[in-house]
Amino acid sequence: MPQPDFAKGNGLVPAIAQDATTGEVLMLAYMNEDAWNRTLETGEAHYYSRSRDCLWRKGGTSGHVQKIHSVRLDCDQDTVLLLVEQLGGAACHKGYKSCFYEEYKDGAWSICSPKVFNPEEVYS
Amino acid sequence: MPQPDFAKGNGLVPAIAQDATTGEVLMLAYMNEDAWNRTLETGEAHYYSRSRDCLWRKGGTSGHVQKIHSVRLDCDQDTVLLLVEQLGGAACHKGYKSCFYEEYKDGAWSICSPKVFNPEEVYS
Repeated sequence: MPQPDFAKGNGLVPAIAQDATTGEVLMLAYMNEDAWNRTLETGEAHYYSRSRDCLWRKGGTSGHVQKIHSVRLDCDQDTVLLLVEQLGGAACHKGYKSCFYEEYKDGAWSICSPKVFNPEEVYS
Repeated sequence: MPQPDFAKGNGLVPAIAQDATTGEVLMLAYMNEDAWNRTLETGEAHYYSRSRDCLWRKGGTSGHVQKIHSVRLDCDQDTVLLLVEQLGGAACHKGYKSCFYEEYKDGAWSICSPKVFNPEEVYS
């Protein structure tokens, strides 16, 4: 059974979360082996928080859980792609649907993803 | 003007390439500051090859250049998302449209991306 190559990245691999319905790329975080196993076991996205140095069940505080539709691995097996249903309609801790809300196009930067919630209310 | 936080990742940030038309996630590679600047200047995806330790113009050998439609940054400014037109119809050096061609769903692994070319012909 394919497995990410955790050794290559000193125990971590990047994991992209993509909206399974719209195709929008929602965020990128990191997984260690424990996060990978829990994601497959539970059907909910788990990551490894580098800043907090711990396992991170996405949506544990906000309720914005990511339900797994499928899991993909790349050709080098050093990156994970999760196709998910994003509960609450937003992945970003700043309230945007996607963490990738700043876009550069035709020489100018703009906001390209809708703001779905107020972080001060959700994380208060 | 927003810039990736290269210092956070020891000079590199992950960069996701996504098909601008279909939304398919094609690959993940890494950028250093030079690759970032050349991508914006030329309108073609440039990465930093960790294995070859050099700037990498995507498609330089295969012709499978990625034309930039837009560039996005995430909330932490430590990941880049490129929306691209993938020339030749395939991003993966193994000949698949997407590097993420192995999919785990409903308890089984399968191939989820079409094979577009024969690597032995393209890289001979």
